[in-house]
Amino acid sequence: MVGTGLIGGSIGMALRRLGWWVTGSDADPARAARALQLGAVDAVGEDPAARITFIAVPAGAVSAVARRVLDAQDAAGQAAGGADQPVVTDVAGIKEGIVSSLSHPRFVGGHPMAGSEQEGVDGADPDLFLGATWVLTPGPDTSADAYSTLQSVVRSMGANPVALAPRRHDELVALVSHTPHLTAAALMNLAADVAESDATLLRLAAGGFRDMTRVAAGHPGIWPDIVAENRDAILAGLDRLGARLAELRDVVARGDRAALLELLERAREGRTNLPTGAPALGKATEVRLPVPDRPGVIAEVSTLLGSQGVNIFDVEIVHSAEGDRGVMVLIVDADHEDKVRAALAGRGYRCSLRRLEG
Amino acid sequence: MVGTGLIGGSIGMALRRLGWWVTGSDADPARAARALQLGAVDAVGEDPAARITFIAVPAGAVSAVARRVLDAQDAAGQAAGGADQPVVTDVAGIKEGIVSSLSHPRFVGGHPMAGSEQEGVDGADPDLFLGATWVLTPGPDTSADAYSTLQSVVRSMGANPVALAPRRHDELVALVSHTPHLTAAALMNLAADVAESDATLLRLAAGGFRDMTRVAAGHPGIWPDIVAENRDAILAGLDRLGARLAELRDVVARGDRAALLELLERAREGRTNLPTGAPALGKATEVRLPVPDRPGVIAEVSTLLGSQGVNIFDVEIVHSAEGDRGVMVLIVDADHEDKVRAALAGRGYRCSLRRLEG
Repeated sequence: MVGTGLIGGSIGMALRRLGWWVTGSDADPARAARALQLGAVDAVGEDPAARITFIAVPAGAVSAVARRVLDAQDAAGQAAGGADQPVVTDVAGIKEGIVSSLSHPRFVGGHPMAGSEQEGVDGADPDLFLGATWVLTPGPDTSADAYSTLQSVVRSMGANPVALAPRRHDELVALVSHTPHLTAAALMNLAADVAESDATLLRLAAGGFRDMTRVAAGHPGIWPDIVAENRDAILAGLDRLGARLAELRDVVARGDRAALLELLERAREGRTNLPTGAPALGKATEVRLPVPDRPGVIAEVSTLLGSQGVNIFDVEIVHSAEGDRGVMVLIVDADHEDKVRAALAGRGYRCSLRRLEG
Repeated sequence: MVGTGLIGGSIGMALRRLGWWVTGSDADPARAARALQLGAVDAVGEDPAARITFIAVPAGAVSAVARRVLDAQDAAGQAAGGADQPVVTDVAGIKEGIVSSLSHPRFVGGHPMAGSEQEGVDGADPDLFLGATWVLTPGPDTSADAYSTLQSVVRSMGANPVALAPRRHDELVALVSHTPHLTAAALMNLAADVAESDATLLRLAAGGFRDMTRVAAGHPGIWPDIVAENRDAILAGLDRLGARLAELRDVVARGDRAALLELLERAREGRTNLPTGAPALGKATEVRLPVPDRPGVIAEVSTLLGSQGVNIFDVEIVHSAEGDRGVMVLIVDADHEDKVRAALAGRGYRCSLRRLEG
């Protein structure tokens, strides 16, 4: 563990509860000491032989730290061991810049979609990831073994891993996290403007307004990096929201009751159907598909199925004796068999499916 | 009680718990029967001699119902009794149109800022108004006695009454309720657009997005009326939000980290300082001011102090023997003495203040 703040500390607590031996370091020695005191780590320090290293530092610092850890492990000959090779991952909220700067078989980008209004390791919680989506962003060089290891560790902490291409991740979080966050700040500042001349305004702020501006109470410190790294996707998100608001403004100005109802009904339906927590762990299906035995294939297949909403419970590549072909074995949600077939056929893969007994 | 839905039913339950005898009617007899079954009313029907009648029907129907009730009471000679005169009020979320159509000494507009994700009388809750702000919008003809009666009943249900001019109420709720509600729908529809081609998007929707779109899950049925009645204020709110978002977009496009931090810090401060629940009931001060004994004065003084954020605990007009002058007696939060003095002096009133013993 490098970085023992809220996320790093929570990962440490979750892994220790599962029986792992966890070491952790932090740029701020006091924070690492506090993590030890709170039971987030077994020992302060870095372990070059760690089976998995989580880089839980601010986004701008991830690449340099991960590179240092990977290089040290390579120099120590740690890379040799196939399925036992040490894995390095991160938890930053933006992925493309980090993943493209870290082309290494043993690196897998990650982003747990969980947070807390608390700050720092004192807010750490081993249950933080229960039911949370944890995005994995394998790059073209990520090995299937590294991906598979990280996926099972993430799942063991109670999270639901989902694979996404790094750029796609950044585009999607711009829409469901960054743009909404900036909108919350805009709504709050608009209210604050008016409250300066009429203090009653804030007394009229009932539950809906409180809900909508809650994220604006968070610490702004992480945002300049996020906005700098993900600028284009955020601008696109703000523009799309602006177009949606302009559409609503037009409906209001025209007094078009039917169009207003239709827009609000659609929003209601979307909000009501928002998935909550874990996808139901129903029956599972094993998918086997022959693939060229090269690193990029794991990223391609996992992000392809992820983008179709397929729940992947496990993934592995069985290497063939010849060395240039392999068989990818995926365990997926049995309800998604048709999606899997269609998605893989669309990319020219031939697969066989077998329902596993519950 | 006319209208026994969520709000009407909750008022009935709260008043019955306080020992009132409550009757209720509804355009839908089944709903009135259900209210009786749930203990929201003592009897189904309308009581022309009711001390206070809450019109809890959809906004578009309030004026006609209130006018009918007021006329029936006037015809029965109920208006005679000074402080005992029957009071009629409503609970609609928009006020100017209703109040301007109901110029009557015994009518006071009202809007409890409380709701529930549940619908109908089955969601009714006697605690719904605990700590909630309840806006009162006296018109120029509202008598001090009617205002004072309603204010004390509202307070007895646990709510915090605050007086606002009807138009000002509508402008403020456009900013803290209507514009945010439409924004939530826009954010949700934007996400739904993208989710059509990439189902993963909704799995990335973490707590912040859920908070921001929660109100969009509400029933759209009330919105066409609200939007029609409050169109100009809502258009102004959407335009102001648009300007704020354009400002943020510009900061993002320029990569201006300092300006971004400043905007987010300001939003954080505003959100952190959002008042929660009831204002502390600290020491009280009695304010006495000579006023002309005409109806409009209660609306003028209460909304003037309300707009300055003064907590008014009680208000009464002591009529003089001559009949054309009176003394208004207000009980206000002792912490607001300076605001009271300044606001009243600004309108040419002379007042005397006396701190009450706790």
